[in-house]
Amino acid sequence: MTVRTHSGTIDETKVGEKVLIRGWVQKRRDLGQVVFLDIRDRSGLVQVVFSPEIDSEALAIAERARNEYVLEVEGTVVARNENTINEKIATGKIEVHAQSVQILNASKSLPFQIEANTDASEDIRLKYRYLDLRRPDMQETFKLRHQTTKLIRNFLDEQTFMEIETPMLTKSTPEGARDYLVPSRVHPGEFYALPQSPQIFKQLLMVSGFERYYQIVRCFRDEDLRADRQPEFTQIDIETSFMDKEELLAMTENMMAKVMKEVKGLDVTLPFPRLTYDDAMNRYGSDKPDTRFGMELIDLTEALKDTEFKVFKSALTTGGTVKGLNLEGGADKLSRKEIDALTDFVKQYGAKGLAWLKVEEEGLKGPIAKFFTEEQTSALTEAMNAKVGDLLFFGADKKQVVFDSLGALRLKFGKQFNLIDESKYNFLWVVDFPLVEFDEEAKRFVALHHPFTSPKKEDMELLATDPANVRADAYDLVLNGYELGGGSQRIYQRDVQEKMFAALGFTPEGAKEEFGFLLEAFEYGTPPHGGIALGLDRFVMLLAGRHNLRDTIAFPKTASASDLLTNAPSHVSLDQLLDLNLSVIAKKTEKVL
Amino acid sequence: MTVRTHSGTIDETKVGEKVLIRGWVQKRRDLGQVVFLDIRDRSGLVQVVFSPEIDSEALAIAERARNEYVLEVEGTVVARNENTINEKIATGKIEVHAQSVQILNASKSLPFQIEANTDASEDIRLKYRYLDLRRPDMQETFKLRHQTTKLIRNFLDEQTFMEIETPMLTKSTPEGARDYLVPSRVHPGEFYALPQSPQIFKQLLMVSGFERYYQIVRCFRDEDLRADRQPEFTQIDIETSFMDKEELLAMTENMMAKVMKEVKGLDVTLPFPRLTYDDAMNRYGSDKPDTRFGMELIDLTEALKDTEFKVFKSALTTGGTVKGLNLEGGADKLSRKEIDALTDFVKQYGAKGLAWLKVEEEGLKGPIAKFFTEEQTSALTEAMNAKVGDLLFFGADKKQVVFDSLGALRLKFGKQFNLIDESKYNFLWVVDFPLVEFDEEAKRFVALHHPFTSPKKEDMELLATDPANVRADAYDLVLNGYELGGGSQRIYQRDVQEKMFAALGFTPEGAKEEFGFLLEAFEYGTPPHGGIALGLDRFVMLLAGRHNLRDTIAFPKTASASDLLTNAPSHVSLDQLLDLNLSVIAKKTEKVL
Repeated sequence: MTVRTHSGTIDETKVGEKVLIRGWVQKRRDLGQVVFLDIRDRSGLVQVVFSPEIDSEALAIAERARNEYVLEVEGTVVARNENTINEKIATGKIEVHAQSVQILNASKSLPFQIEANTDASEDIRLKYRYLDLRRPDMQETFKLRHQTTKLIRNFLDEQTFMEIETPMLTKSTPEGARDYLVPSRVHPGEFYALPQSPQIFKQLLMVSGFERYYQIVRCFRDEDLRADRQPEFTQIDIETSFMDKEELLAMTENMMAKVMKEVKGLDVTLPFPRLTYDDAMNRYGSDKPDTRFGMELIDLTEALKDTEFKVFKSALTTGGTVKGLNLEGGADKLSRKEIDALTDFVKQYGAKGLAWLKVEEEGLKGPIAKFFTEEQTSALTEAMNAKVGDLLFFGADKKQVVFDSLGALRLKFGKQFNLIDESKYNFLWVVDFPLVEFDEEAKRFVALHHPFTSPKKEDMELLATDPANVRADAYDLVLNGYELGGGSQRIYQRDVQEKMFAALGFTPEGAKEEFGFLLEAFEYGTPPHGGIALGLDRFVMLLAGRHNLRDTIAFPKTASASDLLTNAPSHVSLDQLLDLNLSVIAKKTEKVL
Repeated sequence: MTVRTHSGTIDETKVGEKVLIRGWVQKRRDLGQVVFLDIRDRSGLVQVVFSPEIDSEALAIAERARNEYVLEVEGTVVARNENTINEKIATGKIEVHAQSVQILNASKSLPFQIEANTDASEDIRLKYRYLDLRRPDMQETFKLRHQTTKLIRNFLDEQTFMEIETPMLTKSTPEGARDYLVPSRVHPGEFYALPQSPQIFKQLLMVSGFERYYQIVRCFRDEDLRADRQPEFTQIDIETSFMDKEELLAMTENMMAKVMKEVKGLDVTLPFPRLTYDDAMNRYGSDKPDTRFGMELIDLTEALKDTEFKVFKSALTTGGTVKGLNLEGGADKLSRKEIDALTDFVKQYGAKGLAWLKVEEEGLKGPIAKFFTEEQTSALTEAMNAKVGDLLFFGADKKQVVFDSLGALRLKFGKQFNLIDESKYNFLWVVDFPLVEFDEEAKRFVALHHPFTSPKKEDMELLATDPANVRADAYDLVLNGYELGGGSQRIYQRDVQEKMFAALGFTPEGAKEEFGFLLEAFEYGTPPHGGIALGLDRFVMLLAGRHNLRDTIAFPKTASASDLLTNAPSHVSLDQLLDLNLSVIAKKTEKVL
């Protein structure tokens, strides 16, 4: 018998059949004369019985088997007694009586158990990643990732997209995040860069007339890591020619709907809602709002336009804003101490403080209540729909500070008070982003998405004169408060691209040196084109109901960009460095030769 | 009208319909009052007619259009006159009468024409790759690549393989080819390596119990490039647990057969023939023989065992070999001068010279004829099946030199005299490779495949005592003289892996430092496993009937690993180097700080 049967597929229809199974010992019970082993493979597990009545040689070997030993068992499928039936598993009505068994490999005691819920620290899990990945929840997550990828590929194939691979050894460009560099041995002193995205290449493929390109592709950013960032990540990368924004959004929605249906069994409503960037910021203090709950930011500019309260007045008269957040019924939920602690929380986002008021029967109470006239109090109460028992918070500062701090506070409350329906999948388009934003450090405009994003047609004239007020023909796809991806219509005319580079502070010579090949390509019949890129890791994380990006990546890096399993990065030999004409200098600040 | 119709799909069934097409001007004929434009998109092309009778405004715009302009045309499909029908193209029975046209983008004159056969130099083609990719043969090649990839994915999906991604930022290991390194910013002086293959990670996934893994994945080697090498290349990477060699070969054959059937319409015969490594070397002088033609190397050890001819005798008495090659009917094909020139050819492969003989009516003629007795002459003639008019070549040296030089000569003759049936696709397995080979430079054994390849069971005992004579449980897939890929059963027991590292000259400490995590993994229930990796670029090259790997890669590198389009690699800013704690040293030989 050489054909293997997967453990998890052996059910009552196979009673009486001979089976050959190969897998791991999930659990053993040694009752002296009888040994029960649960044998697991990726399909599931089955109970195998060893006894002298069945085969004493097999029993003798089975007695030596421990958890996670790898076995090959031949046996016969037998129906279980009524009283030993386990309805919880697919193989629970049968067991396999082992006529022979072979130990294919042994196993030491494990640093943690192979089970869905582990209390092992993440460091231990990452060091023994090959064991962590055996755990059923991890196996499920990677099955889901495979299924999702496959669905997306099939969808795009059906839509006549072509998968085309782009280079990993590319050119470093000055825009965007920090590049990972790769020294060249053949060209001493020169470097490749690992791609932050295949952006330019996919646009060039449009110049080549491929019309519909996709790739599920690795991208790299050498940035300081956060919980939802990895130095290498996977992107569903799409570019199309002759497709306008509406067609592209509709296609993307259909793709998402297909995945949601097949993977989660959910029907999502199409089209997805849309918010302009301005509305998203004003209502949620975020360009990737979690719309699974309300508690929107409330604009108080009108209600408090005449306020003499210094903090508010100064915000309003210097181009800033005043906004409120109503934590309904919050007066009883937070102690004075807890409220005070929130000040530290919002300070992380640049706020100088956090004003608040309780709504009581007698009116608004709290440290700032005294600053408002009766009229203002009433306007405020009405604007914020404040009812007795509510707790009101206020942000007054530059707009961005108010958005960031109250937006974060809103999310914090949402989680803290279980306002979020975790079963919901709220897709949302955020549109009409600003094309550029001012970078205080670089003292120049930088592209909010990237320098190839097209201005909206109606704002095209402003590009040369007032870039800050140009809206981009760009769209972000948001899911449950995460930015799932972003796309745009691209610039496809040389003069527009040159104006964009100029707006970003490039000299004509500088633009030509960095992007000359692209500018030149635009002169050879470049079609109108646009595309989108979606983060696969993040999408899988949300689909799997996980909260850590690392759980969706087979071999992830830690927050310090290390691989705890292989110990990458590591020192290399002097010969390797000499080959590359490199030397390591002791300190960042030290002078270079 | 907003729904676009693809040019190449407009046929006589659409006569009378209104169509909207978008594409490039492939050809224009301006007959004064009538302008004909062939509009091309990726589906094909269609003839569009502009005239005052149809629409004079459209005509005026069309007159400005030049080759490769991007147009949007609305018009009506009209049947052509009998005498203007073009049977060669799908749209040859109709034309589109243009009611309106819009120039979406203009184009300068191109550096070369968009046509299948170009006489542009490869450097120009690479510099303007976005135009080169517009050429129909390149479009076809990338369609074929997409189709092939898709077929392989679908096949593996059906076989319950899971696509799992492995890291690109990995650890540099001392075995194998030269790594591309990536400096770490967070860990000064440390480096990641780009993967030469996901070998260790895919084995760890087997330890994790995924059982069937695949990935179509980018790999990197910083080696000096040849025509069929690129610094980054794409691998169809497969690993399985519990599948023995025969199952894996059969599955791979079925996958290849499916691609050949779907892509080329060819039925390949299964199973593929197999040759042992020894037979391949002895018969073809190559471990990747092109079996589309005969002209095998002939062993003359027996026929010439008593020779006194010094060159041959010395080879035979020092463990070398003497082999012959019969270029049938070659006596008339090569002049004396051409024969002499072949000496230089074989010298590239380490041969000291090239002995030869012509077969004439009167017997063997040539410089070395006099060295053989009548008996030897007769034995030689018989062994080489020599007939009048044949030209015989001889190699006598160390085995490897004879294999390399006569093997290369055989291929050269095969091409030169059209002995190869280019329509054939000859798949072949080469099996039973040596596990290790002696590296004269490093003065130690190195793995012929990689250090994780299992010895054949029957040779296992020799691993500690006589590694040179251990055969590997490895298999290369060869197609038409190209190594399409290689695979093996892997070592999965710690003690065997330790013996292997010892055979390769590692100290126990050294092995532990470099591969400790793998050795440890083998102690936690590692299943028997094996896998294979196939070169996608090379496979596509052969399927497309191309002879240059660069034609199958959208944005390839030159032989000096440069991208002529973007000018990668390039210099980076001092800040970037400082971030990485690196300085560039002037010369390879200079002392490092």
